[in-house]
Amino acid sequence: MRTFSTIIASSTPIGRYLISRLSLRRSHAISVKPQASTPPMAAADASNEESLRRTLAEKQSAVDAQGNAVRALKAAKASKSEIDAAIESLNRLKLEKSSVERELQSVVSGSGGGASVNREAFRQTVFNTLERRLFFIPSFKIYRGVAGLYDYGPPGCAVKSNVLAFWRQHFVLEEDMLEVDCPCVTPEAVLKASGHVEKFTDLMVKDEKMGTCYRADHLLKDFCNEKLEKDLSLYAEKAAELRHLLAVLDDLSAEELGAKIKEYGITAPDTKNPLSDPYPFNLMFQTSIGPSGLIPGYMRPETAQGIFVNFKDLYYYNGNKLPFAAAQIGQAFRNEISPRQGLLRVREFTLAEIEHFVDPQDKSHPKFSEVANLEFLMFPREEQMSGKSAKRIPLGEAVSKGIVNNETLGYFIGRVYLFLTCLGIDKERLRFRQHLANEMAHYAADCWDAEIECSYGWIECVGIADRSAYDLHAHTEKSGVALVAQEKFSEPREVEKLVIAPVKKELGLAFKGSQKNVVEALEAMNEKEAMEMKAALESKGEVEFYVCTLGKNVCIKKNMLLISKEKKKEHQRVFTPSVIEPSFGIGRIIYCLYEHSFYTRPSKAGDEQLNVFRFPPLVAPIKCTVFPLVQNQQYEEVAKVISTLLKVAGISHKIDITGTSIGKRYARTDELGVPFAITVDSTSSVTIRERDSKDQIRVSVDEAASVIKAVTDGQTKWEDVWSSYPHHSSESADA
Amino acid sequence: MRTFSTIIASSTPIGRYLISRLSLRRSHAISVKPQASTPPMAAADASNEESLRRTLAEKQSAVDAQGNAVRALKAAKASKSEIDAAIESLNRLKLEKSSVERELQSVVSGSGGGASVNREAFRQTVFNTLERRLFFIPSFKIYRGVAGLYDYGPPGCAVKSNVLAFWRQHFVLEEDMLEVDCPCVTPEAVLKASGHVEKFTDLMVKDEKMGTCYRADHLLKDFCNEKLEKDLSLYAEKAAELRHLLAVLDDLSAEELGAKIKEYGITAPDTKNPLSDPYPFNLMFQTSIGPSGLIPGYMRPETAQGIFVNFKDLYYYNGNKLPFAAAQIGQAFRNEISPRQGLLRVREFTLAEIEHFVDPQDKSHPKFSEVANLEFLMFPREEQMSGKSAKRIPLGEAVSKGIVNNETLGYFIGRVYLFLTCLGIDKERLRFRQHLANEMAHYAADCWDAEIECSYGWIECVGIADRSAYDLHAHTEKSGVALVAQEKFSEPREVEKLVIAPVKKELGLAFKGSQKNVVEALEAMNEKEAMEMKAALESKGEVEFYVCTLGKNVCIKKNMLLISKEKKKEHQRVFTPSVIEPSFGIGRIIYCLYEHSFYTRPSKAGDEQLNVFRFPPLVAPIKCTVFPLVQNQQYEEVAKVISTLLKVAGISHKIDITGTSIGKRYARTDELGVPFAITVDSTSSVTIRERDSKDQIRVSVDEAASVIKAVTDGQTKWEDVWSSYPHHSSESADA
Repeated sequence: MRTFSTIIASSTPIGRYLISRLSLRRSHAISVKPQASTPPMAAADASNEESLRRTLAEKQSAVDAQGNAVRALKAAKASKSEIDAAIESLNRLKLEKSSVERELQSVVSGSGGGASVNREAFRQTVFNTLERRLFFIPSFKIYRGVAGLYDYGPPGCAVKSNVLAFWRQHFVLEEDMLEVDCPCVTPEAVLKASGHVEKFTDLMVKDEKMGTCYRADHLLKDFCNEKLEKDLSLYAEKAAELRHLLAVLDDLSAEELGAKIKEYGITAPDTKNPLSDPYPFNLMFQTSIGPSGLIPGYMRPETAQGIFVNFKDLYYYNGNKLPFAAAQIGQAFRNEISPRQGLLRVREFTLAEIEHFVDPQDKSHPKFSEVANLEFLMFPREEQMSGKSAKRIPLGEAVSKGIVNNETLGYFIGRVYLFLTCLGIDKERLRFRQHLANEMAHYAADCWDAEIECSYGWIECVGIADRSAYDLHAHTEKSGVALVAQEKFSEPREVEKLVIAPVKKELGLAFKGSQKNVVEALEAMNEKEAMEMKAALESKGEVEFYVCTLGKNVCIKKNMLLISKEKKKEHQRVFTPSVIEPSFGIGRIIYCLYEHSFYTRPSKAGDEQLNVFRFPPLVAPIKCTVFPLVQNQQYEEVAKVISTLLKVAGISHKIDITGTSIGKRYARTDELGVPFAITVDSTSSVTIRERDSKDQIRVSVDEAASVIKAVTDGQTKWEDVWSSYPHHSSESADA
Repeated sequence: MRTFSTIIASSTPIGRYLISRLSLRRSHAISVKPQASTPPMAAADASNEESLRRTLAEKQSAVDAQGNAVRALKAAKASKSEIDAAIESLNRLKLEKSSVERELQSVVSGSGGGASVNREAFRQTVFNTLERRLFFIPSFKIYRGVAGLYDYGPPGCAVKSNVLAFWRQHFVLEEDMLEVDCPCVTPEAVLKASGHVEKFTDLMVKDEKMGTCYRADHLLKDFCNEKLEKDLSLYAEKAAELRHLLAVLDDLSAEELGAKIKEYGITAPDTKNPLSDPYPFNLMFQTSIGPSGLIPGYMRPETAQGIFVNFKDLYYYNGNKLPFAAAQIGQAFRNEISPRQGLLRVREFTLAEIEHFVDPQDKSHPKFSEVANLEFLMFPREEQMSGKSAKRIPLGEAVSKGIVNNETLGYFIGRVYLFLTCLGIDKERLRFRQHLANEMAHYAADCWDAEIECSYGWIECVGIADRSAYDLHAHTEKSGVALVAQEKFSEPREVEKLVIAPVKKELGLAFKGSQKNVVEALEAMNEKEAMEMKAALESKGEVEFYVCTLGKNVCIKKNMLLISKEKKKEHQRVFTPSVIEPSFGIGRIIYCLYEHSFYTRPSKAGDEQLNVFRFPPLVAPIKCTVFPLVQNQQYEEVAKVISTLLKVAGISHKIDITGTSIGKRYARTDELGVPFAITVDSTSSVTIRERDSKDQIRVSVDEAASVIKAVTDGQTKWEDVWSSYPHHSSESADA
C-alpha cells in the first residue's frame, strides 16, 4: 500500500515531462549571454535610433526628390537663378542628411562614437601587459597553442592562489561550509541524471565544403550587429527586427536559427561557402573510463554535481541538520565550438561553487541583518523589461519588497558583493542582474548574476540561483537513493493522508497475470486522480482506467479497491531541500580584476606612459620588492636580512639587485602590481614606498618586515603607517 | 656552411634512436613498483627461506620413507613392539616436519607470522574511521561508484588544502620558485614529444570469453606471491625462480610475460577462462578537442610537461638566468587497468611538481650547507644489490662520497625530508631509496624516491630525479623552438671549431640536381667523420660517401670541399639545461600521513578503544573546537564570542553545542585530529585541552583565541603555553 502525504511539501513539482523544457546551457553555464556581453539597449536609446533611421530615410527621399527636381530644371533649360536655388536647396538637404547620419552612427556605435575604439585599445594595452609579464601564457605556445586554453604564469598563478585563499576564508571558513573535492572524470550516469548528456549543447553549423564548425548563434549575432552598426541605410523596421532577434537569440530553436541564416544568406565567415543546418553539439569533453572502452565518461562541466551526489553523507556529517552549505573549488571543462573573448571564454577553467541546502518552507537567514544595509547597483527584471537602467537599492529593501525572492538568496548576494569589492572590483562597474523569466530554468525560484563591466561589456562572473529541489530530485530519481531531509516535530502532528488499498483477491481474479501492473498503476495515482476515481466508482460502480505499462484501458470495479483519506499522527516531515547556488567563474573574476586594476601614468621624464596594476595587497602576486639602491655588498647583505625576515613572515617578495636605475625598478614592479617596495639606502634604516601614492616612509631595518606584514595582512592601513613614521622625500620614488 | 663547436657541452647526447629505449612508465610514474610495495627480500631472509624449503623437502621424504617402512612392517606382520617403534618414529618425523613448516610459513608471510594479519586489521580500522568521518568518500557512491575515484570529504579536503598551502610555503615561497598553472586537457603533439603517446602503457590481458581486462604483471605477481606464501611443498629451486620473477617483473616484455602466464597456466581470476596474450594499453584518458572531432587530446598524466613547454618564457621571466625552478600543483589522470590498493592507486590525483633548471656543468647548490647535516634513512643502490637494509647517512656525506650524484639533487632530498617530517610523517618509516640501474630511464643521471612505509609496504610518495636535458631536448626537437640557455663569457674564449666548406661549383658540375642532397649530407658529418674524410681525401684524392637521402654512395673528390679546424673567439655558450625534478604524489603522502597519525587509546571507562589522529596543527583539518560545558545560554554566548575571534584570526574551528557529555565530544574531535579544544565552563575564563597529552590550562576568555592562534601558527609550542598558564585538572579531559 502506498500513501501520499498531503503535508509533505515538495517545493516545486518536478515531473519527468518537464525535462524536455530544461534549458541547461542557460541555467548552468557561467556563460556570457548576449544580454550580458551586449546589454539590451535601453528603451530610450532604441526609440531614438528608430526615429533617427526614419528621419534619415525621409532626408534621403527628400535628397532624391530634389535631385530629380534639379535634373528636371536643367532638362527644361530653366533660368540659372532658378537652377542655382534648387541646387542650393539640394545641398542644404544633403547637409541635413549627413548630420542625421552622423548622429545615427554615434548612437549605433555606442555612446560618443570613439568609445568602442577606446575600449579596444584599452583592452589591447592590458592584454599586452598581461602577456608580456606572464600573467598568462597561451597554452602549448611552442606547438602553436590550442584555442581557449591558457596557462597562468607566475604572477597570474599567485593572483589566482590569493583569490582562492580569500574565497576559502570569506565563504568556507566564515560560513562554516563543508568543503569537498571530487574528481573531474565523471561517469555518464551522473551527467545523464543532471541533464547534461542530453541538454548541455550549443547549436553548430558547418562550412559545407571545408568542414569548419561555427556556433550558429554567433554567426547570426555577428550578422545583426554588423548590419546595425555599419548599414545606416537600414530601414527602421528592419533594424527593429534585427534588434529583436538579438534579444531572443538564446530562445531560438535549431529550425528557427537555420531559417534566419538562410533568410539573411549568411555564409561561412572564412570562405563564404554555404553552411549546414544548425544541429546540437554537446559541449562536454568525452572520454572512457577503464580499459574496456565500454564505460563512457566526461570531464565535468561544473563542480556542483559532485556535491549533489554526496548530499546524504554531508547531511549526516552536519548532524542531520539544515541549513548547511557545501563548497567545492575545482577545474571544469567545456569543449567550446569556437572560443572567443580571450580569457573570458575558455575550454578549461576553475569554478568555485557553493550549494546551500535549505528547508523550502524557511529560507530566512540568521545573518541577513549583517548585509541588509549594503546598497549597490541592482538590475531587477522589471527595470530590464521597461528599458530602465540598473539602480542602487538597499539589499534589505530588495528582499522585503520581494524583488529578491528570499533572505538566503539575498544574504549570498550581499556576501558576493563584499567578496568582489574586497578583491578590488570597482563598485561602479558591478551590478546584480536578475534573470528574466525566459532566461531561468523552469525549476528556478529566482536567479541573479553578478555582472562586471569590462571592455567586452557586462560579463556574468557569479551566478546566484535558487534552484529549488531540482538537482536532488533528479539524482534521487535516477540513483534510487533518497536525497531528502527530515524535520522531527517536537509534538506529533495530525495530517490527512490518502490511502489507496487494492483488494488483491478481486484484482487477481479479474486480471490474473496483469494484476501486478494494475496494482502499481492504481497505487501511483495522485490525490486528484484517486479522488476522482473514488467519486466515479461511487456513482457508476466501475470506471475505465489506463494502465500505461499494459498500454491499454482496464475496467476497475468498486469491489477492487478502497480509496480513503485517513487522519494520521506524524512525527516528522520528510522533504527534498531547496538549494541556493552561488557559482563563481574564478578566471572571469580575475580577468575583470585585471582591467579594473590597470591604469597608466607618465614616467618621471614624461616621455612615456607607465603601466600600473593597483591590486590591493590581498590580491597582489608579490607583496613587496627589496631593492638595494646601488650595487654594493653592504646593501645587498641588508636586503638579504630583510628577505629572510619576510620569508619567515610568509610574505611573498622579490629581491632585485640588478644595477638598473631605481626608477626603472619601481616601474617594473608597478607593472606587476607590487604594492610596496623597500629600498635599502643605508645599513640602519630603509625606505618603504607605496605603489599608487608613491609616498615613502623611513623605518629601521629591523622593523621593515613587520611593517610590511601588518599592511599586507590587513591589520593596518597604509594611511596609519604613513602617519606614524617619518616621511622620506626623494625624487627616486618616481618611476 | 655549418660549423660544429667543440666546446658546446651538450650534457648528455640524446639521439632519436634512444627513444625506443625510453621506459616512460617507470621514469615518470608515481607508481608503486613491485620493489616499492613488496620490498625485495633481504638476502639473509631469502637464504633462510631456501634452506627451510630444502629441510622441509628432506623431512617430507623422511616421512614418506618411514610411512612406507611402517606399511612394510605391517604387511610383513612384524611384532607389535617393532611396529609401534616405527610408528613412534614416523610421528616424531611428522612433528619435525610441522615445525619446519610453521617456521617456513612465518618466514614467507613476513616477520613473525601474525604481522600481515595485524597490518590488514590496522589498515581496516584506519580506513573505516576515514570513511565514517568523511575524510574520503568513494566517488559517485549513489551510482555504485567508479573504481579508483575518491572524493575528499570536509576533513580530508581541509587536510589536503593544508598540505598544499605548506608545500607552497616550503618550496615555492622559500625557494623563490615560479609557479604556473596549466590546463589538464593537452593536445597530442605535446605528449608525443614527451613519449607518453607511444610509451605510457601497461601490459594488459583479457579474459577471452568475458572481455574483462587485467594487468598482466599483476596476475603473474599474484600467482608468484600466492605460490610462495601458501604452497609450502614448493621446491627451493622453484621458489627461487618465482622470487627472481618478482624481482624482474618490471623488465619483462609482453612476450616474456605471455610465455610465463602460459607456462604457469594462469587463468582469469574471476572466471578461470583462458587469457589473451599481453598487449600494451595506453594509460592516458583520451578525448578530442574542438567540435570537429579531429584534434586528439589527452588528460595530462603529469603536470611537468606544462612547465617544459613554457621553459623559454620562464627563463626570460627569470632574467635569462640559471638556475631557477618552476612549480605546478594540479590534477593528473591515469586510466589504470584495474586500480587496487585503495587510496594509493587512483585514476585521478593531485601532483605537485618542481622542475629545477640548472647548468649541467654546475650542479652545486648555494644552500646545500643548510641541509648537509641532516641524517636519515637512505637506501643506496649498492645496499639494495647486496641485500642490506637502508642506513642512516648524513646528507653531506652522501653527496661528498658520490652516493647522491650532485648537491642540487641532495639539497632537494633534504628539503623533501623536512617537508614530510614537518607534516607528521614518522622519521623511522621514511627512507630515500635510490633507483637501481635497470629502474632508471637511460637519460637520468640519478634518481631517489622518498618511500614511506605503511600497511601496504614501502610506498613511493615523492620521486626526485635528475632527468638531465632529456625533456627540453625532446620538445626542442619536436616543436622546432630552441629551449636552451646561454652563458655569456666575461671574456671571449678561444675555441676550435670544425668548418666544412663545400665548393658548390665543383659539386654542381658533378651532381647536378642531387647537389643539394650531397651538400646537406656533407655538412651533417660530425667531427670524427669529417676528419676521417679529410685524411682519406689527402691520401687518396677521392672517397666513397653514402648520402642517405639519395640512398646510394657518391664519389667525393678533393676539390669538392674544404675541411678544416679554425680557432674562433666565442662570447657565449649555448646549452640545454639539465632538470632536477621532485615530483610529489599528494594523495599518497596524505594517506601515509593518516596511517602514521592514527592511534587508539582506551576510553575513560576503559570499555572501548577510541581513535585519535595525532595531526600536527599545521595539518589538522580543524584547529580547535569550542564546547560550552553544559547547555546554557551564557556559556553559548561566550562560545560565540570566542568563535568570532577565531574567525577573525583565520583559525578553522567548530562549535559543538549538543548536550552530549564532554567526554564524548572530546572523543569525537580526537577522531578528527583536532589538536585543541576550548571548553567554556565559566563566563570569565575557559580551559584549553591538548589532544594527545589531554593536558588542560586555564586562560581568560579574551586570550583564548590568541593562544590558539599562537600554537597553531607555530609561533609557540604547547609546552611553552603549558608552562606559562595555570593548569586545570579535571577528569573531563578524558574522552
